[in-house]
Amino acid sequence: MRYELYYWPSIPGRGEFVRLALEDAGADYVEVGRGDDRDGLGTAAITAYLSGARTAAFPFAPPFLKAGDQVISHVANILHFLGPRLNLAPPDEAGRCWAHGLQLTITDFVAEIHDVHHPVGASLYYEDQKPEAMRRAAVFRAERLPKFLGYFEQVLAQNPHGPEHAAGAAHSCVDLSLFQVMAGLRYAVPNAMGTAEEEFPRLSAVAARVAERPNVAAYLRSPRRLPFNQSGLFRHYAELDP
Amino acid sequence: MRYELYYWPSIPGRGEFVRLALEDAGADYVEVGRGDDRDGLGTAAITAYLSGARTAAFPFAPPFLKAGDQVISHVANILHFLGPRLNLAPPDEAGRCWAHGLQLTITDFVAEIHDVHHPVGASLYYEDQKPEAMRRAAVFRAERLPKFLGYFEQVLAQNPHGPEHAAGAAHSCVDLSLFQVMAGLRYAVPNAMGTAEEEFPRLSAVAARVAERPNVAAYLRSPRRLPFNQSGLFRHYAELDP
Repeated sequence: MRYELYYWPSIPGRGEFVRLALEDAGADYVEVGRGDDRDGLGTAAITAYLSGARTAAFPFAPPFLKAGDQVISHVANILHFLGPRLNLAPPDEAGRCWAHGLQLTITDFVAEIHDVHHPVGASLYYEDQKPEAMRRAAVFRAERLPKFLGYFEQVLAQNPHGPEHAAGAAHSCVDLSLFQVMAGLRYAVPNAMGTAEEEFPRLSAVAARVAERPNVAAYLRSPRRLPFNQSGLFRHYAELDP
Repeated sequence: MRYELYYWPSIPGRGEFVRLALEDAGADYVEVGRGDDRDGLGTAAITAYLSGARTAAFPFAPPFLKAGDQVISHVANILHFLGPRLNLAPPDEAGRCWAHGLQLTITDFVAEIHDVHHPVGASLYYEDQKPEAMRRAAVFRAERLPKFLGYFEQVLAQNPHGPEHAAGAAHSCVDLSLFQVMAGLRYAVPNAMGTAEEEFPRLSAVAARVAERPNVAAYLRSPRRLPFNQSGLFRHYAELDP
């Protein structure tokens, strides 16, 4: 199966959570958004799907994945679909349901991370909502960041299979996504994350181990891995991370 | 199977999306949060789970569902689990995956609806973030509300099985959730929703038909159905809906 990943070409964004799973598993996939319009790829191919012109089951927003005739929207739904197929999910249904709940908690966390720099609306520039962002960032740093990181740390600590993995006894999409969240937060709010390694040692260890997995390490060194930037989900603004 | 629904007792909130599925299907369930502490129910039972004291697979936030030994978090995950068991999901895996994507779009919509009145942080009172809420509400009314409602209207219009249902050929959790979203929006932003019946006729028709389903109609008349209120997800503030 050759998967088609549809996501904006210039940011890691939410697409990165799917990309990490495909790369880690060595899956065959096409990065549609980074292709050429003349080949039927590029952003025109993305917007054609979003308009509803290509399929009745059309997504609201990227990322989405095409797998055969199926178009699957939302990071968590895509990873729930890919998990068993890429050997990146617990083997039992109850385990996959738990992993999906964790993935949806990551979804919620990521939405809050985004809204720190866009509390009024995604259609406005950051510069046009800076006072609101300053207030939201203070609440995020004081309350939400430690609450979410503390939750995942405790999930790891309580895992009956050991703290090496978030869901079940083996590596899964959840571990990959936690790596990406930690990497993104270190880029976006390095000061707030200053002592995270000490405060959240199990979570930091999961992130470090993921980065050393051979396929992930090769991917991180490749040009396919886009650097974090100021158009994406994880952004660094000094005034939001004093 | 007697399901246990864990949600705060005084608001419809996100728990209502799960409750509607259980009520529509005539499922056997306990409303744990509305029970008595002396019976091991009430909010103490909710917080015990949230603390991680009851199970290693503990949720970040309510609502969550207990089904036998399984604890399932997040509205969309719960409905993905319940759908096939309550005959409220498409019969095939691809159909359920599509329904789940729609449910996750509703999740995103609901999060934005909440953040209109809480753009800075959920831990602060609305009154302490009113200027920010005024700005966010303007963007919501002008851009996000019509975009989400327009999306679901088009999904209904393009459904190859007809516009009576959102996902596949039959009634599902998605239709129930769309009813709740429309009811909540009519409460929260009646002015912005003024001409919604004409602009989004298929969506309005789905909501009207759901309200007439015998089990739903009986539930809506019962004391189990909490009215929308100013502590919940859908809130009406006149200044946010001029």
